[in-house]
Amino acid sequence: MTYCVGLKLDAGIVMLSDTRTNAGMDNIAIYKKTFLFENPGERVISIMTAGSLSVTQTTIARLREAIESPEATETQSIMRAPTMLGVAEIVGDMLARTRLEITEKHKAFDQQASASMILGGQRAGGEMRLFLIYPEGNFIEATNDTPFLQIGEHKYGKPILDRVVRPTTSLPDAQKAVLLSMDSTLRSNLSVGMPLDLTVIERDACRVSAVRRIEANDPGFAAMSIAWSDALRDSFIRIEI
Amino acid sequence: MTYCVGLKLDAGIVMLSDTRTNAGMDNIAIYKKTFLFENPGERVISIMTAGSLSVTQTTIARLREAIESPEATETQSIMRAPTMLGVAEIVGDMLARTRLEITEKHKAFDQQASASMILGGQRAGGEMRLFLIYPEGNFIEATNDTPFLQIGEHKYGKPILDRVVRPTTSLPDAQKAVLLSMDSTLRSNLSVGMPLDLTVIERDACRVSAVRRIEANDPGFAAMSIAWSDALRDSFIRIEI
Repeated sequence: MTYCVGLKLDAGIVMLSDTRTNAGMDNIAIYKKTFLFENPGERVISIMTAGSLSVTQTTIARLREAIESPEATETQSIMRAPTMLGVAEIVGDMLARTRLEITEKHKAFDQQASASMILGGQRAGGEMRLFLIYPEGNFIEATNDTPFLQIGEHKYGKPILDRVVRPTTSLPDAQKAVLLSMDSTLRSNLSVGMPLDLTVIERDACRVSAVRRIEANDPGFAAMSIAWSDALRDSFIRIEI
Repeated sequence: MTYCVGLKLDAGIVMLSDTRTNAGMDNIAIYKKTFLFENPGERVISIMTAGSLSVTQTTIARLREAIESPEATETQSIMRAPTMLGVAEIVGDMLARTRLEITEKHKAFDQQASASMILGGQRAGGEMRLFLIYPEGNFIEATNDTPFLQIGEHKYGKPILDRVVRPTTSLPDAQKAVLLSMDSTLRSNLSVGMPLDLTVIERDACRVSAVRRIEANDPGFAAMSIAWSDALRDSFIRIEI
């Protein structure tokens, strides 16, 4: 499995993904699940992926091919689409098409291939948008009422997000929130693993403001994880029933 | 869905269940999911249930019938079984048999019925035991390494248990832990709902030490829930990344 979480806040977009991929318990590998596309100042797009690696890799590879093709139209290249909604439609269509093709190959073996994605970004002159793209290619969008979207193993890390994330949350607090949400997931589920990829896109920058790969031995993340555990245990001791 | 959690500690057993049952979003009802069987001083058995209500109700009803039947043998009545392992086998067999019967009725409609249970208790002269009984009737047992078992919507409430529950946890702390675990689940998942049923069985008492129904408007639970949210938010603010 996978855990990816994206936040759309007044101040910008924050996205975090893990990197663990497994085909069975004895076949574990590290694959990047965050993909950035940027024409700085004009548009920025970040895509996080969960699900069958063959589906997500092929989908991303085909999106890249369309970007590089000089003939690709604005309904084919995510770097030419006139709006973020258009980008979501291209990504959704490509995901659904790729999934159908791979599912067709699986049919004889009674297997299914599936994948979902979180897509965030902004085009100059347009609004910042964050979408969750379903395996069927349709999508939903983050709003002020629901400023975060999750894919993969989303349940362990949801309580902390429910409690602290609001549209007014600052970008530093948002990074803290997604890292703590990931920390709870890492502790409780083996199929989610380090390193992590963190992406920050400030509102109206139309470029990637910061990326950070957090390795398994990252001292800052380890310190935060320990401090959070200690804080939870201290709070637990102080609470009265 | 449902959320039930059981802890087996040095000091005793603590079990907590919600009461929400739903058949679709517009058919929500309250059903008790904790069932107590007691011959005080000789044996105490507590069963919590998750899954298809027709399966769990029929299973419990049949277990009761066997208890009341004067002819029931020690492989049929959970109140006559010579060990807690024997009790687990009776419950597992009855669950699997009931499930198979109901699944048979569902077959024509291509539907499945499933359920799982947590069984805890002690017989005079025997050890305190806590089992998770799978829909197929087989079971696993809580140990010192893994002192808690969960059924139903278990993911939201697992991080707090992973962090604070140890075999040496006291009974008051254990009650706090399961209530906070339930609180996280209630906040993040609509299919789990108040009121709650809390059961405490002290080691070697061989009787129910305490039961408590926590209603939706319980002031103690509400205060704990608010204090925990506040503590989490305070901890969140203090943590540095």
